This record gives sequence, structure tokens and C-alpha cells, in this order.
Amino acid sequence: MDKILRINMGGPDGEPSYRTETLGEYAGLGGRGLTSAIVAKEVPPTCHPLGAENKLVIAPGLLSGTSGAMSGRLSVGTKSPLTGGIKEANAGGQPAQMIGRLGYAAIVLEGKPKEKTLYKILINKDTVEITEAPDLKMLGNYDLVDRIKGKYGEKVACISIGQAGEMKLTASTVACTDMEQRPTRHAARGGVGAVMGSKGVKAIVIDDTGTSMRSPKDKDKFREANKKFVEGLKQHAVTGQGLPAYGTNVLTNVVNEAGAYPTYNFKTGRFRGAAAISGETQAETETARGGLATHGCHRGCVIRCSGTYNDKDGHFLTKQPEYETVWAHGGNCGIDNLDAIAMLDRLDDDYGLDTIEMGTTISVAMDAGLAEFGDYEAAINLLKEVGKGTPLGRIIGSGAALTGKVFGVERIPVVKNQAMPAYDPRAVQGVGVTYATSTMGADHTAGYAVTANLLGVGGTVDPLKPEGQVELSRNLQFATAAIDSTGMCLFIAFAVLDQPETFQALIDMINAFHGLEMTAEDVTALGQKVIAMERDFNKRAGFSKEDDRLPDYFKNEACPPHNVTFGVTDEELDSVFG
Amino acid sequence: MDKILRINMGGPDGEPSYRTETLGEYAGLGGRGLTSAIVAKEVPPTCHPLGAENKLVIAPGLLSGTSGAMSGRLSVGTKSPLTGGIKEANAGGQPAQMIGRLGYAAIVLEGKPKEKTLYKILINKDTVEITEAPDLKMLGNYDLVDRIKGKYGEKVACISIGQAGEMKLTASTVACTDMEQRPTRHAARGGVGAVMGSKGVKAIVIDDTGTSMRSPKDKDKFREANKKFVEGLKQHAVTGQGLPAYGTNVLTNVVNEAGAYPTYNFKTGRFRGAAAISGETQAETETARGGLATHGCHRGCVIRCSGTYNDKDGHFLTKQPEYETVWAHGGNCGIDNLDAIAMLDRLDDDYGLDTIEMGTTISVAMDAGLAEFGDYEAAINLLKEVGKGTPLGRIIGSGAALTGKVFGVERIPVVKNQAMPAYDPRAVQGVGVTYATSTMGADHTAGYAVTANLLGVGGTVDPLKPEGQVELSRNLQFATAAIDSTGMCLFIAFAVLDQPETFQALIDMINAFHGLEMTAEDVTALGQKVIAMERDFNKRAGFSKEDDRLPDYFKNEACPPHNVTFGVTDEELDSVFG
Repeated sequence: MDKILRINMGGPDGEPSYRTETLGEYAGLGGRGLTSAIVAKEVPPTCHPLGAENKLVIAPGLLSGTSGAMSGRLSVGTKSPLTGGIKEANAGGQPAQMIGRLGYAAIVLEGKPKEKTLYKILINKDTVEITEAPDLKMLGNYDLVDRIKGKYGEKVACISIGQAGEMKLTASTVACTDMEQRPTRHAARGGVGAVMGSKGVKAIVIDDTGTSMRSPKDKDKFREANKKFVEGLKQHAVTGQGLPAYGTNVLTNVVNEAGAYPTYNFKTGRFRGAAAISGETQAETETARGGLATHGCHRGCVIRCSGTYNDKDGHFLTKQPEYETVWAHGGNCGIDNLDAIAMLDRLDDDYGLDTIEMGTTISVAMDAGLAEFGDYEAAINLLKEVGKGTPLGRIIGSGAALTGKVFGVERIPVVKNQAMPAYDPRAVQGVGVTYATSTMGADHTAGYAVTANLLGVGGTVDPLKPEGQVELSRNLQFATAAIDSTGMCLFIAFAVLDQPETFQALIDMINAFHGLEMTAEDVTALGQKVIAMERDFNKRAGFSKEDDRLPDYFKNEACPPHNVTFGVTDEELDSVFG
Repeated sequence: MDKILRINMGGPDGEPSYRTETLGEYAGLGGRGLTSAIVAKEVPPTCHPLGAENKLVIAPGLLSGTSGAMSGRLSVGTKSPLTGGIKEANAGGQPAQMIGRLGYAAIVLEGKPKEKTLYKILINKDTVEITEAPDLKMLGNYDLVDRIKGKYGEKVACISIGQAGEMKLTASTVACTDMEQRPTRHAARGGVGAVMGSKGVKAIVIDDTGTSMRSPKDKDKFREANKKFVEGLKQHAVTGQGLPAYGTNVLTNVVNEAGAYPTYNFKTGRFRGAAAISGETQAETETARGGLATHGCHRGCVIRCSGTYNDKDGHFLTKQPEYETVWAHGGNCGIDNLDAIAMLDRLDDDYGLDTIEMGTTISVAMDAGLAEFGDYEAAINLLKEVGKGTPLGRIIGSGAALTGKVFGVERIPVVKNQAMPAYDPRAVQGVGVTYATSTMGADHTAGYAVTANLLGVGGTVDPLKPEGQVELSRNLQFATAAIDSTGMCLFIAFAVLDQPETFQALIDMINAFHGLEMTAEDVTALGQKVIAMERDFNKRAGFSKEDDRLPDYFKNEACPPHNVTFGVTDEELDSVFG
């Protein structure tokens, strides 16, 4: 796995072409570390995100394609059309493991087709085929994958865009198929799908037939470390019990109880309808309808936080909607109907849209008077406009900031133009620091301070006060950048943060596999290096310290029930990476 | 004229209220100098432009309300919803002179009404009346002014917003009535109308009945200086002949001949249909249909560069469309039909939209495939969508950058989100420097290097080369900030730049009127001070040096017929105010 596959969609003769090369200066990097390194070095920071100079970098993790647990995340990096800065969005599903087995550390889409031609790309152990695919035009991800399955069989994985990516909308995703060959796992944030669309690539079909599991340098040590790692995950309450039983949506009751659950477009921190859409209710519903409440999204997952959500008639509707999705389409829009939320999730996956951005956008549209809070039919209709490609749909599909601008809404919960996720920054101030200062725009995963703020994981910091939040967020952002660069599922962080021996097992796995001698300090240093690269890119793209801020109203409007405002000062925010 | 009228639309009890105060620390400032000083000091740079903390400052010039020639410009300043930075847009028409006679140096709209109530404000010598005006809701400026005229008679002036401002669209204007009480003069750029809309103010009616001309401190000196000033304007070829005869549209043939006329969304520098829409053809058409080819927009104008454009049946359609408008809706959209352009101008004035932003937006929409270049009926229909308030109309009314984003267009000619005017920055590189570095976003009036680049006014600098452009643009930007701060029509600059005695006459007028002893150096220093204030505001709002750049494609794509790219380096751009 030491090759980069570079696919130039606007080759010298105007035809797509490809070449492979060794990792070279990027050796030793994977996942976010690799995507950010390539983007920071090769993409002009002031280029148009949809132009020929931007690149879309798709990179599995350091252990993808191995028997290592949780190693199947796929990083997608680019200059974001949403934020204008560097972006790494990652997803589960099957492609990472298969790309790893094919020996690619990264697939880089470069250039731009001269005409508006749509292509599909097949990558297998022998070749790379880039062919025109007019028949796939404006298909949703579900129909698209059905076609791919019909042609290439039931063992391939697919990386694709839906209508939103083809329309180059800034809330569009890159979809990855899961173990059931469904397009349910998305590199969702920052409009990465629009960049894939601008390259004219509708689908990348990954076929690892004839390849075998990647082999560690030290097989025994690797096996042993992997075993300890899995044990660590199983014994931690979050990764061993909470997540498997209820999925990420276990958080609804927790966050709502904490008064940090953004409701009605970030107006209050508690939602009356929370119980009806909680993980507990969701799991019960799934089981009662013959779906699964516990399920993995990729080979090698041992946490298995996903599930399948069937409709009332017992037919598959969508994968188990994540906490963020349930919140975005649920509480934040005043909607307490799980079936409606599942339908919205299904539509997002099909069109290829970021559920967080869409939920926040719809709540902003509700603030603008386009629909009543709680009106789930109106919410579904708004989302369907995106699929139809109407002007209204294009507005919605361009995200919360743009929608707010078009409709003259003042309260728009974004940072660097990206919508805030499911934690009110006034009631989880550590996450507020992450929203403000992350290189990615408002992003909970970039430094998930919910851990020490609400969950008592990795320490305890009062969520309602500014004290200690800067240090908490900073450390988590470095750790996250490191974990994202291993390509491991971020959920391992719960166990890794709490259990030193599980963290050591992770390092041992990587060392045993690659024949390295990394220490814990090296891992932290890697995270620091990645963030430094990203911040440098953003600076060259024109970001200033004023971009590391929450919208003013979080400082001026108190959030019930705690009635607190965001108390971390601008100077403190500047000290996070200052 | 030493009073500020402050109108708080969200007074302490939620009801609008007003108070007057003396100029205080702002004494000695007028026009842009005053609006920028108030905005820079009183508006939090990171506030939402449509929020209660933003202010809309309306200021006449230092000599408005006097018998001084050309003294009737009205400055409108705010934090721009389009650029996110400080904004001063100015307009001719009657209000400035009348506000001057009423003794107000500035009217400041503050706060925000609690409910979505629409108000009108009457200002006369005795009182300020703020009354609810639900009957004016969503009226175009023409219908609105008819209602105002019906109620307040034919002598009042009106400052108003059309549908676009009420919808808070970022391309919306603040309209001023002209001498015929038509809403044809607009403070057009940067979405100032949206801020007026966010304050809930539909119209400000100015009634100067019972007031008299403001009296100079030294009447004789003032009269003498004014006489010399007018003589200077009359004897200069541009202000004495070209502008009166053909209006600003005299430039179409000049700029097209120079290969600097942006055509088909800034793809070439020369337009085949230029002759059909030139100032010469326009004046001929106007005269033949019983309109006027020469006409002033405000009392005290001696250049008289405007006119009236009648339809084929001889009925008034619109005021003489300006060069920028004819270009924006004409050549840049591939349209060579003057009647269609006049109709687009009329619609812009009626809805309250910036013609430059709209023309550029429609050309971007044409690039996106929404209409064919040259299809003027489609262009008219696109603009009518704005008046209807449809989602497509809201997109278009939000300007070129947003429209490009929504439709995934890569080539978007904006700086700081504001659309470029009618000079290709590759073929008039001095204007390119102004576009890039102006505090206002892409704005030709901020430092009109067309003078020395193409017109041979104020020196000669090769338009196709980077040499000398930085100094040219810098000096013009300082001079312009000074002239804008006097509140004089900027067109005096042609004569003032070329004829030292006319510049001296201007200074003598101000000195004689106010009892001052300003020198030419003081005037330049004023311009420098104003720009320093504005740059400081923008910096605090988050602008960095990367915001002082043209889009990359102007550096990479050569513009026919000269086939040059923009050659001024980033370092040179940083040296303009560095």
C-alpha cells in the first residue's frame, strides 16, 4: 500500500488518463494526514474549489485492508466549496478496506473534463478503467448502486455522488457503500461531493477480487495488539455497551437532559419530543419491525453502532439514522417523528447530502417562514426540492449560510460557513471552542469535548463555564487529527482516551504492522503536524482569526434552560493554536 | 447642518423613537467621510449586517443644501450584507440637497423593529414622524413614489427601497428621487437596501418646505469660487462636452475600442454589438422619441450627464441608462438591444436592484445555462423573478457570487463578493488594482484608473502593463475618498485632476462656506484617513490580504483581443496600502 493512483480527468489531450506513483514524500501518512498533506502541498489555496486546480484526495487509513479492528474509515480531502478552506470528511463502509487491499494509499482526482461529460471509474487489481457514463446522469445513490451491482456484481464497493454532487451543491457528499452494498456511509461535510461532481466522476467502483488481506511486518505482535485493542473497546461502557445497543442516538436523552440539545434552530437546549426520537425508542422500533438495532458499517468493525431502519411494513428504509441526523432533522426542526426523520435520512443518502447541514438548513428555512417548526411533511418536501434540482432545492442544497442569506435570516448557526452540529456551544462550551477554531468549520468530530463536558470520559470539565475548555478542545483536536490520520473509526477514542492500555494497543498495532517504533508522543506530534498544515492552508486561502469565532448571537443570547451565553473570549480562542 | 438625526427602530419600549444630537466628534465630516466614521466607530465589525447592531447612515455632503454646483450626492454607509465589510454607496437625486437644508449632517437608522412591521418616516423642518405603513408593503419604487406623491405632494423627495430591499436581498439598493420625483438615482452597491429593509423602513420622505438655502460664512468668496469651479467643469472636454452630450454611455465605444469591454461574462474585451448600444446611438434614440439626451439628476448639477429614455411610443420608460448599466445588461450578457436594456434598467430601479450586480449575475446565470447569451427576453424574465420573490428571483437578487455558487459556476467576476463593473481588469490593469484593493469590493468608482489608463486624463499609464498601476490606483483611491467625503459628484474629478485651478476652486468653496483653511494636502490627508478607517473596520471584520485579490482566472486566462493576463503581483497589491 505504497502507491498513489492519480487520475487526471482533463488529461493532455482532453481525455481522462491515470498513472500510479510511489508515496514518495508522503510515505508514512494515511487518512486525514495524507489527504491534508496532498491538498496543502498541491492545491493553490486561492483556487476555485470547482476548478481544475483543486484535487479530490481519497485515502484509506494506515491499517485499512488489514485484519485490524475498526480500520475501515475512508478520508476524503479537498479544498472545500462550502468553507473555502481545507477539508477532510471521512466515512465508513467497505471502500477503505478494499482500496487498502488493492495497494493504494490514495486515489487523487485531478484536473477537469473539458466538456460536461460524466464518467465512472473501475479500479481492480489489474487495471483502472475510466469510461463515459451518460446513463448514470442524475441518478440517486440508491439507483446508481443498483446499476453498478447489476453490472459488476455483489462484491464490489462503490464511491459515488447523487444528484446533489452532480449539481455541485455545497452540501453534497461522497457516498460509500456498506456491507450490504447500500450507499449509506457518507463523507458528508464541506461539499466534497461537489468537487467530485466538478471532476465529472459519478462513481468509482472498487473491485478487490483476487487480492488478499495486507500482511503485517510482525504478525504475532500485530495479532496480539489487535486482540488487546478489541478487548479494550469491548470493556468500555460507551464502545462496548452504549454504542452497540442504541447507536450514536444514545446521545439524544443524554444531551437533552444536559440542556445542550439545540432546538428550533438553536433557540433552546431542551426538546419536549426528545423521548420519541431517542436511541432507546429507535432501537425498539427497529427491532419490532424486523430491522437491526446493532450492526457494523464495515468489515472489521467490533463496535457495531449502526443498524437498519425498516418502514411500517417491514421494508428497508434506511440505515439506522445517526444521532446528529436525528437531531438535525428532528429536534432542531421541532420534529418528533422517527419515521419522518428516517425518510429524511434516506433522501439525504440518496441525493447525496450532509444530514447535519440539511437539518440546520431546514431549521433556518423554518425561521425564514418557509415551513412551520414541527411540520415534517413540509421538511420532506423541502428536501425533495433538492432532488428535483429546482431553484429552491439548489438553495437548500447549498446549506444553512447561503439559505439564510437568500431569505434574509439573521440567526445562522455556522462557523466558516459550515452548519453547527447537535450540541449547543453555550451549554457544551468545549465543543463551542472546537466549532470556532477547527480548521474544518463547525465540526463536533474535530475535537469532541462532549467527552469531558457531558460524558465524564477523559476527565471532567464543567460544560457551562469557559474555564478549561481551551485546553480540552486543543488536546482533543490534536488527538483527533492523529486518529483520523490512522484511518481508524473515531469512536475508538472513547476507549483510547479512558484506557491507557487501549491507546498503547493501538500504537502497537500500527508499529507491528509497519515495522515502526512510534511512541504516544509521536502520535500527538502527528496530530499537531496535521493541524499546522491545515491552518497554514487556511491562512493562505485568506482565513484570519476572525474566522475562528462563533456568530455573535451565541455571545449575546442566553440559551435556556441554563440561560448561559458562550463565555470563552476571543483572546482565549486565539490561544488554542496561537 | 451640524445635527445628527438618530432614529432607533427598536426603541426601549419596542416602538421606534428618534433624537437629534450635535455632530460632536464627527464635526467637519460629510458624505463618505461621515458615514464611514460612524460605521467604523459604532458598528461591531463582526455583527450580522441585518441585525440590530448594524446601522444605516445617510449623509449629504459638506456643501449639500447650498448653491454650490454638483453638491447633491447622498452617501449611504453601513456594514454591507454583500461584502461583509464597510460600505459607502452614493447617489444623486434630490434628497441630499433637501436634507442639507433641513440641517442634518446625517440620518442614522439604528436598532431593529421587534415585529416585522413596515414603517415610513417623514422628516420636515418641524418634526420627524415614524408611522406604520402596511399599505406600502412590497410596492416597487415607482408605485411607492406615486403613493408618496399623492399624499405629500410634488415637492418632497423620497428615499426608499423596492421589493428587493424588503426581501433583504444582497443586491438591493436605496433609491432616491430625481428632480422629476422619479426613483431613478440609487445608492446601489453592496446591498444597502437590505439593511434599510432590516430596519423595517420602506421610505423616508424629505420635505424641506419652509427652509432656505444654507448660507456660506464668506458669501463673496464662496460665490467667486463656485463660479470658477463651474467654469472649470464647463471647459473640460469630459465634463463640458462628452458627459453632457452622451452621458456616461459615451464610454461604450471608447472602452470597446480599447479592447477592455467585458463581454460574455468577462470572456473577451470587445463586443460586436457595441455600436448599437453606444452613447451616440442612445442619445439619438432618446432625442428621436421625444426624450432628453442631456439632463441633470439634482438641483445644482451643471454637468447634466443624464437623460430620459422613452419607449417606442414616446412614453417615459426610464432615466438614461448609465454606461455601467448598458454594459452590464448589454455587452456582458451579449445583448445589443437598447430597448431591452432600458427595460432592465427600469425593472432594476423599480425593484431596487444594483444594475452592475444584476447584469453580472445574469451573465453568470447564462454561463450556468439558465439562458442563452444575447437572449434579452430571457434576461428580462430572470429579472422579473426577483420582483415576484420566487426562489430563483431571490438567488438572482443575491448577486453574482451567490448565484455562481448555487449553480456551480466557476468563473465568477467578483472581489469581496461584489461584482466587477464594466472594465476588464486585464485590459485596464489600474482598475484591476482598484477592484482588488478597494475597501468596497470590486468598484470602479473607488479609484477610477480608466482616466490615465484609457482616457489620458491625469496622466498616461499603459493599461496593459502592471507598471505604474499601483501608484495610480492608490492616488486615485485617496482622492476619491476625499471627493466622496465632500459629497460632490465624483464626475468633477475629471476636471479637478486635470486642472489645478479647478481643484483649488473646489477647496476655496469648502473653505469659504465653512470658514476653514484647508489646503490640497489636507484634502489628500482626509482621503487617507477615510480609507485607513475603512481598512481597519474590514480587518476587524475578518478581512485579510487574500481578500485584496482578483479571482485566479484573471491571472491565468488571457483576455482577447490583447491576450493579456492581469500582471500586477500579489506583493504589489499588498503595497497599495501596505
